Amino acid sequence: MAGRTAVVLLSGGLDSAVVLGWMRREGFDCISLSVDYGQRHRIELQCAARVAAAAGVKEHLVQRIDLRAVGGSALTSDQPVPKGESSDGIPITYVPARNTLFLSLALGLAEARGARDIALGINAVDYSGYPDCRGEFLESFAATANLATREGVEAARRGDLGFRFHAPLLRLSKAQIIRLGNELDVDFGATSSCYDPAADATPCGACESCRLRAAGFADAGIADPRARG
Amino acid sequence: MAGRTAVVLLSGGLDSAVVLGWMRREGFDCISLSVDYGQRHRIELQCAARVAAAAGVKEHLVQRIDLRAVGGSALTSDQPVPKGESSDGIPITYVPARNTLFLSLALGLAEARGARDIALGINAVDYSGYPDCRGEFLESFAATANLATREGVEAARRGDLGFRFHAPLLRLSKAQIIRLGNELDVDFGATSSCYDPAADATPCGACESCRLRAAGFADAGIADPRARG
Repeated sequence: MAGRTAVVLLSGGLDSAVVLGWMRREGFDCISLSVDYGQRHRIELQCAARVAAAAGVKEHLVQRIDLRAVGGSALTSDQPVPKGESSDGIPITYVPARNTLFLSLALGLAEARGARDIALGINAVDYSGYPDCRGEFLESFAATANLATREGVEAARRGDLGFRFHAPLLRLSKAQIIRLGNELDVDFGATSSCYDPAADATPCGACESCRLRAAGFADAGIADPRARG
Repeated sequence: MAGRTAVVLLSGGLDSAVVLGWMRREGFDCISLSVDYGQRHRIELQCAARVAAAAGVKEHLVQRIDLRAVGGSALTSDQPVPKGESSDGIPITYVPARNTLFLSLALGLAEARGARDIALGINAVDYSGYPDCRGEFLESFAATANLATREGVEAARRGDLGFRFHAPLLRLSKAQIIRLGNELDVDFGATSSCYDPAADATPCGACESCRLRAAGFADAGIADPRARG
């Protein structure tokens, strides 16, 4: 398996850092891809670069797309990020078609670099409100990807699988993800989960993402190096 | 049907201008979306803005994504654009995952604006070498889109179709497309098809796209207002 290249979507958050560690352990040379889409939690882009460097990726690419011009989400507008308990249904932090867009960018990059494997940190347990974090979405995207691309079409002719998509965290709880990251020596201190951090990058501690992170570390019995004293 | 909004991918080329005219005739209020992806034929972005204004769209959005950092295509690199006869197979003007990416952008925009219809000018006759210009690709993308989005999930719960994708040129020849555009009063003089235009926007006359355009106008018996002397 040595020498196989994978593209890993890296947000700067905890989950995708664990995915990168997992793909490295699986023997992949990794290219990390982050997207600067005008998210209010831009500190995560600096975190992504630190995580990528620590993992020894062979390339770290940041693509810029301004989704503020599109809107439709609390993460790309001035709409307040909700604090406290989760509401039912799809949260207002949902960004229209975000994972479809990010996977499309990863697919083009993978094809251009001769990589066949693409990994991302979607999770259907804690974030079940997001439609594009479900396994059925990813399976459908994979089928589309193999119809959309030169490599997909040529692989089908050879009887090969074409592009393969890896979502190793899909069915893990936050605590399980954190334990896995711990085994993989992921530097949690380099990651940022908060949707609404202060200017100095201090997490708000109250948004859904902060609360899930805190509960996950507590359940895992591991200290979060980024937790506030 | 009055008042329904559609997002139309508008490249500045002839085909997507005809699609915009077609969607207007179908009764849609249209939002046009162009992508500045670092293509060497950037003149088409100016053409897109002219076509959009002439068609009276309610919004024209240009998204910027630098695909030169990705590469893998003659359209986003210094690789020469081939002149003369088409070669077999997928041309080197293929841009990895381009239509998947553009459709993802259109999907997010449609969802954010409350539009359910998305149209694009793919054609499986003249450009059969591009995997992402085939009907089976678009059908698969549509299924993915309806799994990926809030609107897709909610529509499925209501028993509705969710997002609908329109590719009215899919099975038309270039001459048929030009005749259709003529009926729809499309201003062909505002469109640019060349992959490798001169700095003053003069088409090269020799790339595959120029040759298909010239042959299409000849077959249709219509004069191309952009043809050279």
